[in-house]
Amino acid sequence: MNPTMEIFSQGEEIVTGQTVDTNAAWLSQQAVACGFTVTRHSTAGDNLADLTALLQDISQRADCCICTGGLGPTSDDLTAEAVAQAFNLPLEFDAIAFAQISRFFAQRNKTMPGSNRKQAMLPHGCERIDNEWGTAPGFSLQYGCCWFAFLPGVPMEMKRLFEERIRPTLSSRFLLQPRQLVTIKTIGIGESDIQERINSIEIPAGVQLGFRAGADEVQTKLLFPFNYPETAKLAAKFAEQLGDYVFAIDGLGEITGDLVFEIDKLMTSGKHALAVVETVSQGLLAAKCVGSEWLLSSIYQQSTSKLGQNPLAETDTENLFAAAKAIATDLKKHSGADFVLVQLVAGDNKTLHDKDKSMAIYNTLLAGDKFHHAAHSVAGPIKRKQNQAALLALDLLRRYLQNKSMNH
Amino acid sequence: MNPTMEIFSQGEEIVTGQTVDTNAAWLSQQAVACGFTVTRHSTAGDNLADLTALLQDISQRADCCICTGGLGPTSDDLTAEAVAQAFNLPLEFDAIAFAQISRFFAQRNKTMPGSNRKQAMLPHGCERIDNEWGTAPGFSLQYGCCWFAFLPGVPMEMKRLFEERIRPTLSSRFLLQPRQLVTIKTIGIGESDIQERINSIEIPAGVQLGFRAGADEVQTKLLFPFNYPETAKLAAKFAEQLGDYVFAIDGLGEITGDLVFEIDKLMTSGKHALAVVETVSQGLLAAKCVGSEWLLSSIYQQSTSKLGQNPLAETDTENLFAAAKAIATDLKKHSGADFVLVQLVAGDNKTLHDKDKSMAIYNTLLAGDKFHHAAHSVAGPIKRKQNQAALLALDLLRRYLQNKSMNH
Repeated sequence: MNPTMEIFSQGEEIVTGQTVDTNAAWLSQQAVACGFTVTRHSTAGDNLADLTALLQDISQRADCCICTGGLGPTSDDLTAEAVAQAFNLPLEFDAIAFAQISRFFAQRNKTMPGSNRKQAMLPHGCERIDNEWGTAPGFSLQYGCCWFAFLPGVPMEMKRLFEERIRPTLSSRFLLQPRQLVTIKTIGIGESDIQERINSIEIPAGVQLGFRAGADEVQTKLLFPFNYPETAKLAAKFAEQLGDYVFAIDGLGEITGDLVFEIDKLMTSGKHALAVVETVSQGLLAAKCVGSEWLLSSIYQQSTSKLGQNPLAETDTENLFAAAKAIATDLKKHSGADFVLVQLVAGDNKTLHDKDKSMAIYNTLLAGDKFHHAAHSVAGPIKRKQNQAALLALDLLRRYLQNKSMNH
Repeated sequence: MNPTMEIFSQGEEIVTGQTVDTNAAWLSQQAVACGFTVTRHSTAGDNLADLTALLQDISQRADCCICTGGLGPTSDDLTAEAVAQAFNLPLEFDAIAFAQISRFFAQRNKTMPGSNRKQAMLPHGCERIDNEWGTAPGFSLQYGCCWFAFLPGVPMEMKRLFEERIRPTLSSRFLLQPRQLVTIKTIGIGESDIQERINSIEIPAGVQLGFRAGADEVQTKLLFPFNYPETAKLAAKFAEQLGDYVFAIDGLGEITGDLVFEIDKLMTSGKHALAVVETVSQGLLAAKCVGSEWLLSSIYQQSTSKLGQNPLAETDTENLFAAAKAIATDLKKHSGADFVLVQLVAGDNKTLHDKDKSMAIYNTLLAGDKFHHAAHSVAGPIKRKQNQAALLALDLLRRYLQNKSMNH
C-alpha cells in the first residue's frame, strides 16, 4: 500500500475563485510520481477556526500533507498561527529565519518592513525549511500519523522548495515504491487510429495503458509497476507501431517537451533559421515559436489568393504545391533563412468558420534545395482548425529535422 | 451574515493532478457574486468511503454545496452511490432521466451502451436536474443544514446547468445580499501610477478598493455593499482619473471582455479590416486576434531592417515613424484593409532576450488617410516584452476605435 498524501491550499484568493489552484495539481503530479496515493485536496480561506479544524482532520487521515500559502507577512496570513492552535505548538522566534529574511531585503537594498518579523515566528519544535527564493521560510513537523510540510503559495518558490528541500527527504520518511510512467507523444494521429495500431501488442499483467488527447498532442501512456524490468523494451514496441507520428518519448531519462520544444532543440543545435507563410493558422504558428531566435519572419494572409506574384487559384493539389514552391523559393532568397515553411489552403473563410466543414491544408517545406510536401484535412470549430493547421505545418519541419518520413 | 458555500470536486484525474480544477474557481466566482461566502474547496478521488465521509462532513458545516463530477456511466463514477450511502437514500430508477439519456443517443444516431442506464439511478427523494447538454442529469437534495446540487464535471455542461438551473433558484432558497463588483480595466499604465492618480478620491466607508495586475491588463476593483446607491457615480470618478487608459468597465450592466474583445466589437460593427506588420511580438499580435474575420494579413519580421523597400536604419524616432508611414501606405494599397498597424522597434535581438534591458517600440496606425503614432518602452523577460508589444499595438487601434487620445 502506498502512503497517502493530502494537498492543502490556503488563501482567500483561491477559495473565492480569483486564482485557479495550479499548485495543487502540480504537487499531486509530483506526489504520484514519488509513489504516494493522493487522497484529497482541500482549500480554506483566511479563517483561523476553519484552518485549525482542517489541520486536525488531516492529521488523523493522511500519512503526509503538503500545505501551500498563508506564510506571508500580513495579518491574513494565518498558517503558522493555525498550526500553533491545532497542534498546541506555541509560536517561537527563530533567529536564523529572521536573519535570512533580513538578508533577503538587504541584498535587494530594501528596508525590511516591521511586519516581516512575523514570518520568523515558527511553531515550537518544527523544522525550518530555508527559502533562498523568497522571504518566507517554510517548516515541517510530524503530528499524529501525519508528516506536514508548509510551503509558500508563490508557485516558483513552492516548486523550488519542493524539488530541493522536500522531495529528497521523502524516501527516508516513507516506504515509496513509485510506478514508472512512460508517455509516447504523437501528433497527426487520433486516439482510435492509435488503438488500432497497437492492438496486436500484448500488455503484460500489471502494466496499465491509457490515452490522453490534448489540443496539441495525443499521449499514449504506459504505467509500469515499481522496478519493472522491461520498461524501455515495451515502450519501444509501442513507439515502433506508432512510427513517425511519435515526436518524443517521455519517462525514459531524456528531457522532453511539446512539439515546439523538440523543434527548438534541433533548430538551435543545427543553427538553422526559418521563414514562414501562414494562412489558416493566422499567426498562431509564429506565436507558438515565440521567444525563439531561429524564426526570422512570418507572413500571414487570410486569403491564399493574395499570396505570390499572381492571384492564386485555389484549384487542385498540384497547382497549390507549385504555387507554394514559387513562394518558398522567393522567400528563401529574401529572408536569409535556410528553411522556408509555406502553408496554403483550399477553401474560403466561410469554410474556416463553419464547424461542420473540413478544410484541406497544403504544407510545403523548402530545406536546402529540396521541397517536401504534406497535405492534411483539418476539421471542427475555427479554433481547432487554426491550432491543427499551425501544428501540422510545424510537424512537417519536425519530421525533416528528426529524419523521419515526410509523408503521412 | 452570508450563507456559506462549499465546492466539492470529484475525480481521480483532479486528485492526481492530471487536470487542473478550473470548475472550482469558476463556481466560487459565481457563488461570491451571488452573495455566498465560500469557505472550502474539497477534492476526492474515486473512493467510495472517502466520498461518503466528505459528504457527511460538508452536510454538517455548510449551508450550500455544489458538487461536480462522478456522474458518468462507468464504474468509477461514484457520486450517486456515495450520496445514497452518506445520507441513507437508496438509488432508484428515474424513468424520465432514462428517457432523456436515451433521447440524447437517439438524436445523435448512436446506440446507447447498457452502462448509461446507471446514470438514471438517482438517490431517493432528490430533485432531478435536467441536462440537455450531455448524458448525465444532475440532482439536488437537502440534508441536514445543507442544500446540495450535483452537476457533471464536464465544464461546458456544468456551467450551463449552473447558469440555467441552479442560479435562478438560489435566491428563493437563501437570503442573499450580494455585493457589487465594478472592475475598471486599463492597459498601458501600471498599478503604482494608477494608485497615484486615484489618491485624491475619497472612498466611502464600506466600499473596498483592490487591484489585480495581470499579463494583459491591470484591473482596478471596487467592491460595493449590497444595494449601494451610488455605484455608477463612484466608478465614473475612478474612470475619469484613469482617462484614456481605460478600455472597459465591467459590472455596470454592459458585457465586457479583454482588449481584443472590445476591439472585435468595434471592428465588426464598423465593418473594418486590418493588416498588420509585427516585429517584437513575433506573431502574437495576429494570434491574439485568432478567429476574427477582420484581420486580413500580418507580416512578422525579426529584424526591422528587413522591412520596407530599403534596409531600415534603426536610428531616431522620426526616421522610424517615416519608415512606418511608407510601409503602411504600401501595405494599405496591396492588402485591401482600411486600417494598417505597423510595429517597429529600436534595438536588436540581443536586447529582446536580455531581461535587464528595455526596448523602444514605435507603433503606427494608418486609418483612412491619417497616421497615428505612439512610442513605448517595454521591459522584462522576452515573453513579457513580446506580450506587451502585441498589446500596445492593439491598444493604439483600440484608442482610435473608441475615439480616445492617441498619445499617452
